[in-house]
Amino acid sequence: MRFKAVISYDGTDFTGFQRQNDTRTVQGELEKTLTRMNGGQMVQVQGSGRTDSGVHALGQVIHFDLPQGRPEEKLRFALDTQSPEDIAVHSIEKVPDDWHARYQPHEKTYEYHLEIGKPRSVFNRRFASYFPYPLDIEKMQKAIKYLEGTHDFTGFTATGGSVEDKVRTIYEASLRYDKDQEIIIFTFSGNGFLYKQIRNMVGTLIKIGNDRFPIERIEEILEKKDRQLAGPTAHPEGLFLKEVRYL
Amino acid sequence: MRFKAVISYDGTDFTGFQRQNDTRTVQGELEKTLTRMNGGQMVQVQGSGRTDSGVHALGQVIHFDLPQGRPEEKLRFALDTQSPEDIAVHSIEKVPDDWHARYQPHEKTYEYHLEIGKPRSVFNRRFASYFPYPLDIEKMQKAIKYLEGTHDFTGFTATGGSVEDKVRTIYEASLRYDKDQEIIIFTFSGNGFLYKQIRNMVGTLIKIGNDRFPIERIEEILEKKDRQLAGPTAHPEGLFLKEVRYL
Repeated sequence: MRFKAVISYDGTDFTGFQRQNDTRTVQGELEKTLTRMNGGQMVQVQGSGRTDSGVHALGQVIHFDLPQGRPEEKLRFALDTQSPEDIAVHSIEKVPDDWHARYQPHEKTYEYHLEIGKPRSVFNRRFASYFPYPLDIEKMQKAIKYLEGTHDFTGFTATGGSVEDKVRTIYEASLRYDKDQEIIIFTFSGNGFLYKQIRNMVGTLIKIGNDRFPIERIEEILEKKDRQLAGPTAHPEGLFLKEVRYL
Repeated sequence: MRFKAVISYDGTDFTGFQRQNDTRTVQGELEKTLTRMNGGQMVQVQGSGRTDSGVHALGQVIHFDLPQGRPEEKLRFALDTQSPEDIAVHSIEKVPDDWHARYQPHEKTYEYHLEIGKPRSVFNRRFASYFPYPLDIEKMQKAIKYLEGTHDFTGFTATGGSVEDKVRTIYEASLRYDKDQEIIIFTFSGNGFLYKQIRNMVGTLIKIGNDRFPIERIEEILEKKDRQLAGPTAHPEGLFLKEVRYL
């Protein structure tokens, strides 16, 4: 019996989503809990994709198989309360046996939270990165629009990745300023993102907002596919996988 | 030269505000930083009052003396950036030499954040306590009004305190439900609060909302001055010292 679950996690104390020997990961912790709930019989978890060390999720999707059916809300409650407290389980539903969190076609939305107030909030330290220097938000709002559409994002990904095809489509790329919290919230929705792509796009947009790069730099990076032209990788604590929408 | 500062802190990793040997406290960390900034000459910090272990502050007020004047914003920046990252310094201003954070007449406002959604948010774990059982919010809103006014709050304080006079005035006691965050926010403003008073009032209001106590229990506790009639002390992670207003 296959189950799909929507989960959130505070990425601070995980070495990312993916199972690794000897480090604490989201997949590893969920598999430990599910295996225990399954009487010690190994249960494997598949996620919609990885998130890096320190990156959070508001709505990551996973699937796993159990040998017998269980009432969905009971299973959700058990998995939620028996998982570590930095993982929460929001919903669980039965899905067909061939449903797959990763291979089922889907779109993803990420948010990036960048705090710009002074002093840095003691309450947001784990959930926003910090940039206390001048930023031209309107300029960044113009620049981010050049990321929308279908492009080869080679210039925004870390070198050495194993993925061959680096063409992806971004349906929405936008940013807004939350005045109360003094946080800039970047939103990116697309059919898939490359390794470190969002953090590299954000790092480049920060350079543009801080007047180190012209707006045109975005088009230049897309065209020349040159990582050297992009800004530094923005810190992981600002990044949230917000939603996975299956088509 | 005396300086007044408004600070915030994430109380999670402090054994409260007040200096203690061998444990990490807000006062202790600030004194360490200021003493270092003062070339090793001891600087003492006075707060408007203590906060308990695990309790947070959005706007705690302190004062301290330095042997010479300094530009206020420079001093704020230095103290903010040289303090541990769970303390932030929002403002600093020069005050008369006899100004005193504790003895200057003032009013205080506290907030208490109680999360009631399911599952518990992984992002609010440190900044709200959790109660996943039914609560009648309207009933609690009626009950909390009985705390307003001038009363002897003996029944809501921990026994064994050293304060003789337990009469205090609460100007405002109210609560509202933040639907987005699924958090009940209690607000208490008054001319002073006794040891654990707010957490005991909140613990009692939760019992009333959960239909374990009638609304009238508030008046009974105030009248009989009996701690046994009140609810349990609510957890510290939900409590925030929000503001200190000098008169």
